Amino acid sequence: MHFVMLILVDQDGVLADFERGFYDTWRAGGHDFPGIEPAARRCFYVRDDYPREYREKVDAICAAKGFYLDLPPVEGAVAAMRAMLEMGLDVRICTSPLQRYRHCVPEKYEWVERHLGTEFVSRLILTRDKTLVHGDILVDDKPEITGVRTPDWWHVVFDQPYNRHIGGARATWADWQSVLLRL
Amino acid sequence: MHFVMLILVDQDGVLADFERGFYDTWRAGGHDFPGIEPAARRCFYVRDDYPREYREKVDAICAAKGFYLDLPPVEGAVAAMRAMLEMGLDVRICTSPLQRYRHCVPEKYEWVERHLGTEFVSRLILTRDKTLVHGDILVDDKPEITGVRTPDWWHVVFDQPYNRHIGGARATWADWQSVLLRL
Repeated sequence: MHFVMLILVDQDGVLADFERGFYDTWRAGGHDFPGIEPAARRCFYVRDDYPREYREKVDAICAAKGFYLDLPPVEGAVAAMRAMLEMGLDVRICTSPLQRYRHCVPEKYEWVERHLGTEFVSRLILTRDKTLVHGDILVDDKPEITGVRTPDWWHVVFDQPYNRHIGGARATWADWQSVLLRL
Repeated sequence: MHFVMLILVDQDGVLADFERGFYDTWRAGGHDFPGIEPAARRCFYVRDDYPREYREKVDAICAAKGFYLDLPPVEGAVAAMRAMLEMGLDVRICTSPLQRYRHCVPEKYEWVERHLGTEFVSRLILTRDKTLVHGDILVDDKPEITGVRTPDWWHVVFDQPYNRHIGGARATWADWQSVLLRL
């Protein structure tokens, strides 16, 4: 039987700072379009926020070798993950890889090993449908998470500029402990 | 709500012929120890069947670039997976990667794309703990599958020489349809 609280934590936009990584890469690329600063992003998918004619460039950046590996950690994320384990919570990283998986998939593992260590590599779950994964809570920046099932977990929205229209439980790595206590 | 039968299918030893791939690689390597033919294998992990002094060589073969990608499909596996989808079952591939993930993880995706096609790439779930994944049935060659939860799924043992000591439901790709009907 399982009585330990099981917390699923999304990787991109929650642990890995996808927004910072993407914006910096875009700026360094010298495109005509200046890019959208992380604080000004409004759609969950970057490609939907950028002008239509830049979509292929957006996709190419995300699919490129090294992009996922080099994402900086979200501030406070690494310390929070370690703190959760120390509190006796069962924490797993639950992430959906790109369909262009070649670099994204192995680099998600490498990223976790580099920033969180080997112990967390065993805690990785890769799935395109998170409703199939059991858990008490899913911390995820995606506004609406759907799949084939009614999920077991409670979705706690990880606060980002592009998900502020969503109600319900919301957390950052500064206030996560009080949010969990309230649930 | 979810009323479609959800079948999780393990990858190695069920879809990908790990035993054939390992034995052929071992034989080609010209080791002193002649190897153990697939039909004579008795432990789930190859490393536990081989003499102690060869364990590192066994591990090195599995962790090497190309090993997972080049595994041949188990006879009948590809046709069965397609037939399950056509029957309207929801089929997912549920697989536990090696801790030495570097080649194993991306090559599991590439293998699925190569032999089952893009549609099945989206159906891949990678996890070290399969009890965390929801399903009605898990078809898996591992004799005992444990994790932090009591699983939702019914374990159907995929018949292999090293799991014949296990009772309960058992299937091959020749008789899977009658096994599913009986459940």
